[in-house]
Amino acid sequence: MLTASDRTTLQIVSCVQPNGDLEVSLASVPIPRPGPSEVVLRIEAAPINPSDLILLLAGADAGQLAAGGSPERPVLTGKVRSAAALQARFGQSIPVGNEGAGTVVEAGSAPEAQALLGKTVAVATGSAMFAEYRVVHAALCLVLNPGSTAIDGASACINPLTALGFIETMRKEGHTALANTAAASNLGQMLVRICLKDGIPLVNVVRTAEQAAILKGMGASYVCNSSEPSFLADLTEAFASTGTTIAFDAIGGGRMAGDLLACMEAALNRKATSYSRYGSPTHKQVYIYGGLDTAPTQLVRTFGLAWGLGGWLMTPFLQSLEPAKVVALRRRIADELTTTFASPHARQVSLAEALRLPAVTEYAKRATGSKYVIVPSR
Amino acid sequence: MLTASDRTTLQIVSCVQPNGDLEVSLASVPIPRPGPSEVVLRIEAAPINPSDLILLLAGADAGQLAAGGSPERPVLTGKVRSAAALQARFGQSIPVGNEGAGTVVEAGSAPEAQALLGKTVAVATGSAMFAEYRVVHAALCLVLNPGSTAIDGASACINPLTALGFIETMRKEGHTALANTAAASNLGQMLVRICLKDGIPLVNVVRTAEQAAILKGMGASYVCNSSEPSFLADLTEAFASTGTTIAFDAIGGGRMAGDLLACMEAALNRKATSYSRYGSPTHKQVYIYGGLDTAPTQLVRTFGLAWGLGGWLMTPFLQSLEPAKVVALRRRIADELTTTFASPHARQVSLAEALRLPAVTEYAKRATGSKYVIVPSR
Repeated sequence: MLTASDRTTLQIVSCVQPNGDLEVSLASVPIPRPGPSEVVLRIEAAPINPSDLILLLAGADAGQLAAGGSPERPVLTGKVRSAAALQARFGQSIPVGNEGAGTVVEAGSAPEAQALLGKTVAVATGSAMFAEYRVVHAALCLVLNPGSTAIDGASACINPLTALGFIETMRKEGHTALANTAAASNLGQMLVRICLKDGIPLVNVVRTAEQAAILKGMGASYVCNSSEPSFLADLTEAFASTGTTIAFDAIGGGRMAGDLLACMEAALNRKATSYSRYGSPTHKQVYIYGGLDTAPTQLVRTFGLAWGLGGWLMTPFLQSLEPAKVVALRRRIADELTTTFASPHARQVSLAEALRLPAVTEYAKRATGSKYVIVPSR
Repeated sequence: MLTASDRTTLQIVSCVQPNGDLEVSLASVPIPRPGPSEVVLRIEAAPINPSDLILLLAGADAGQLAAGGSPERPVLTGKVRSAAALQARFGQSIPVGNEGAGTVVEAGSAPEAQALLGKTVAVATGSAMFAEYRVVHAALCLVLNPGSTAIDGASACINPLTALGFIETMRKEGHTALANTAAASNLGQMLVRICLKDGIPLVNVVRTAEQAAILKGMGASYVCNSSEPSFLADLTEAFASTGTTIAFDAIGGGRMAGDLLACMEAALNRKATSYSRYGSPTHKQVYIYGGLDTAPTQLVRTFGLAWGLGGWLMTPFLQSLEPAKVVALRRRIADELTTTFASPHARQVSLAEALRLPAVTEYAKRATGSKYVIVPSR
């Protein structure tokens, strides 16, 4: 229970000035009293996801950041590359952190809030989770099963719901197999485990032989390495074998999205019995859900006219599903938290350590296996 | 009535060999007896549309074509740029011509076929309309109103249904205004007339001051010239004024599609009350329906994650509508054939003349106002 005299929390905030100066620091802010349907969560683990970096570093070059301030109150400074696009956040100290897990230490009067008291829960709020405490709505909380720790549940929301969201999108749009790029990521490995378990054909695109070996070792059937000269032929072959007509692309920039569409088209045309000047009539879809490559997307349009490309974001997609479906997906995550949905975290850091070099430079790389989790009590 | 002894028709056919040789010529083929629900159409006017050029010239450089053969049987020869993509049509003489109009001179036994005897009808078959005669299904025929000629009705199907299809797509996907590029084209001018008549806000993108003047002269409210230095600001302003969140792009290559999305996003963000790292939550859509620029599509992704880009083709879109809706659209076209849906044809050529220089070079330019219509009786 929080005392009346000490109702403050440290939180990581990020601020961009009109001149492009970026400052990331720790702010001490009051913890509000929870509303009737709200609870106060003591955050015990919060992962640093690529989506957090957008807000945290605002597109500043991580290699050019400077660490200063005091040991207890470190301050990270840098320059953003394109201030104009950030106009809407100029001068605001924005609290960062999309998800995490911890213990409910205070609850509002409503039964659904009271029921959570003392429970270990995971939550994705989309903001202010890089903090010691946060007030959250009871309905957002996913109660972890007995035996699951906050570290187990730190990443229980975003990656698991994203991976399951890919599969639900595939089904909703009438496809029976899917592809994923940057497939050796935490999310990618989770998707491999889900698809193996559920018997869904999955084509994995990676960029090194080491990443291919990791996925093959997990039992993945289709792994295509974009660094191989045979990549496009391999991808076409995998699409033809699986009937894949939807792909999720974490890269975004360069030729990948167009290559995915072109290889789907080539695989479909193998079965064509007559020439169609408009290409295969089967709809081919690619969703860009990340931006590992921030360069422009280049589409060499050799895939007919039955195609779509778009952005994909988990929260609005889930909102388009039946609420009961979302409840079932979340229940499955809790039940398979340490198996299908396990997220190995590479390094634990405190709130202050997350603002120091070289930790920042490391997690900003968003490289396979270099994931960090913030443990405020450290 | 066709005589029993002369049941042949000339038709324009296009053939690509595995070595990339293209040959376009006139073939003499038998006219089959119509089935019960079919009719024989004497084609009196058939326009040469950009979509016909895909099949006719197979991507060969129109400037490098050679004209030969005899005056009655001219032969056009050339080299296609990318033979590999055309494998499915190697060695086949493909009859060309998507749409046209003429008189029904013979009919099958079914009442719906008999009812068409002697009528002037327009039809889009998707093939073999560059001919003297063609057997077509009665259900495809749009009976022109008394007083409308075959020349009036030659382009009554593809452009009018495409323009109306844009508006139906806009409505179906929940938008209230739309944009179109290459807006001074026949199709673009038709869209201007429809939108003026129906009170739908339309943003027109053109690339010269002359084209802008044409549309302004027709009464278009929003015309943005992509050659102006203020183009992106003008487009953003027009999108903000009209609330446009869907665009149809005939260009395809280069930055246009991405610029449309970026300007929609900029217009939406003017009204944003807080910063969202994922961009505006309002879905922004661009459909590519042509390929005036065959270069790769370049997307500089500064438009958040709520966006879509895709190919758009009239026939499958119409098939997704209620049949009664399609009947109503076709009826409207017949009723407004010489007003809203008028297509000025620049030049009339015979079947043979269509295979001679410089006619081929002219219509292959697909330039505003350089449209040709084939009149087989010439």
